[in-house]
Amino acid sequence: MTKKPVDIKSYTEGILSGNISVVSRAITLVESTREEHAELAQQIIDTIIPHSGRSFRLGITGVPGVGKSTFIESYGLHVAAQGHKLAVLAVDPSSQKSKGSILGDKTRMEKLSVHPDVFIRPSPNAGSLGGVARATRESIIICEAAGYDYIIVETVGVGQSETTVHQLTDFFLLLMLAGAGDELQGIKRGIMEMADGMAITKSDGSNISKAKSARAEYARALHLFPPTESGWIPEVLTCSSLANTGIGDIYNMVDKYRRHVQASGYFNRKRHDQNSQWLHQTIDEMLKHRFYNNEAVKAKMQQVEQQLSGNTISPYKAALQLLSLFR
Amino acid sequence: MTKKPVDIKSYTEGILSGNISVVSRAITLVESTREEHAELAQQIIDTIIPHSGRSFRLGITGVPGVGKSTFIESYGLHVAAQGHKLAVLAVDPSSQKSKGSILGDKTRMEKLSVHPDVFIRPSPNAGSLGGVARATRESIIICEAAGYDYIIVETVGVGQSETTVHQLTDFFLLLMLAGAGDELQGIKRGIMEMADGMAITKSDGSNISKAKSARAEYARALHLFPPTESGWIPEVLTCSSLANTGIGDIYNMVDKYRRHVQASGYFNRKRHDQNSQWLHQTIDEMLKHRFYNNEAVKAKMQQVEQQLSGNTISPYKAALQLLSLFR
Repeated sequence: MTKKPVDIKSYTEGILSGNISVVSRAITLVESTREEHAELAQQIIDTIIPHSGRSFRLGITGVPGVGKSTFIESYGLHVAAQGHKLAVLAVDPSSQKSKGSILGDKTRMEKLSVHPDVFIRPSPNAGSLGGVARATRESIIICEAAGYDYIIVETVGVGQSETTVHQLTDFFLLLMLAGAGDELQGIKRGIMEMADGMAITKSDGSNISKAKSARAEYARALHLFPPTESGWIPEVLTCSSLANTGIGDIYNMVDKYRRHVQASGYFNRKRHDQNSQWLHQTIDEMLKHRFYNNEAVKAKMQQVEQQLSGNTISPYKAALQLLSLFR
Repeated sequence: MTKKPVDIKSYTEGILSGNISVVSRAITLVESTREEHAELAQQIIDTIIPHSGRSFRLGITGVPGVGKSTFIESYGLHVAAQGHKLAVLAVDPSSQKSKGSILGDKTRMEKLSVHPDVFIRPSPNAGSLGGVARATRESIIICEAAGYDYIIVETVGVGQSETTVHQLTDFFLLLMLAGAGDELQGIKRGIMEMADGMAITKSDGSNISKAKSARAEYARALHLFPPTESGWIPEVLTCSSLANTGIGDIYNMVDKYRRHVQASGYFNRKRHDQNSQWLHQTIDEMLKHRFYNNEAVKAKMQQVEQQLSGNTISPYKAALQLLSLFR
């Protein structure tokens, strides 16, 4: 057991030497909402950031029931078998309400969670999406600095969190069940057009032919979409975590994408854009936070909302009135 | 000819009595970027806003070449024939660079532009998307107060403007050409999932069977999408402005949607949400404007961007540094 790191030096050295226990504690620090933790966390991130950025980041989303945990178990073992060091992180702002489900995930990833080259981190149960997103982003940096060269970020496909994961990762994989019925209800519109690839899960036993025809349908649909910015045409595959089939094909598809975008320069350009996006998003969120927590603004807001409902003021004029109260 | 309105009373009376020349001048006023115009414009909007909100607002988008002007000519004549007073507005922030194309549109709408119950307004060539969006939103209010009960807002499907038009309207119609080849290049990803309906244009002559099979393909693809918030399942139709076929069907589809969402209460809820969205978006834009035009922020920004590129600072810390300069 390592001694509990207390200063920035022991944190950064522990992270850079790949000490799992220090990595865990550092992530706890970036997840913390306490002010004194925040400052130390920022110092750590700033020290290790030149050592980050050299992993491949895979975002995975899918509604509950799609078999995400078992997929990540199979896929993760395949990734590790290719010689990668793998970190699995989760973004799930809803976990506040359903604590325990993520720990459940970890026990479902029986083999993966004990693999020596794999680090699994349950979702932070911190508050806002913005906070969770920042913590996840910084957790990626920590894992990369610790030598993990393949990062999976998973999320449930039901909220705003997919947009965040899409922004944090290089490839966005959407897991789907065969058939276009009720199971689609949970997925938000717009997610399909974000996906760089889709995998139809549970393609085993009597479900194989259903999965195959779903694959054909989705492939046809994706073909009608406008091309992605990277010039990549999203592919659809089938797989079964139970029968352990199709997992390697999905790995190869993702890898083909990686080679494609690294060769074209899109990979680096996107990473750079993501950094810049992150800067402006943070600024945007903090400006709004200041504004909406301003006492004068808060007092006026209720009145303005009533006027808006009654159609007696234009939203533009209402905005001007509120802004005039903010210094 | 009416006298040129000079005060708020002559403007509002002119608008409420449906005087086209006053309506035009009022729109010019909301499009103006001059401070003294802005104030008068806001007074007018605030006076007439209780008389607005009672039209149906149809957003239409499609890449250049899809036949948007001829479609609007045919569709608009059909709308007017149903007893509606129709206003056609355009959102095209790119028109700065390609002035004249919109006037070209108007002359292509030969019959529509001289119809007594139809008002066509070319796109403002004002600057930013935010400014154009606000002007369009206020132009809708002016037209509604003037008694126009059917508003078409058109945009080219190539920028951010479709998102704006989607936010301003009740139904978002996407015009497409048959075939999923090069003509899709111009459309941005995400737009298909915004559409409440699609129309395959130029379905005439030897193109009919191609249009029919495109319709089937798109209908199948849209069926795979998650349901819309309104519970409406987007439909795909074909039409020809040349042969004047299918136009009535599209009108009927839009009208079916209108009845569906008015019955369910979604119509009013969405209008209310749009107002609230507009308030917060305006606040957001103006806060950012203040921030990014702050001299200290501007001076520091360049340095921060270099550090970001060199991966020597985290976007989060960079944001904190910049924010500390802003009071």
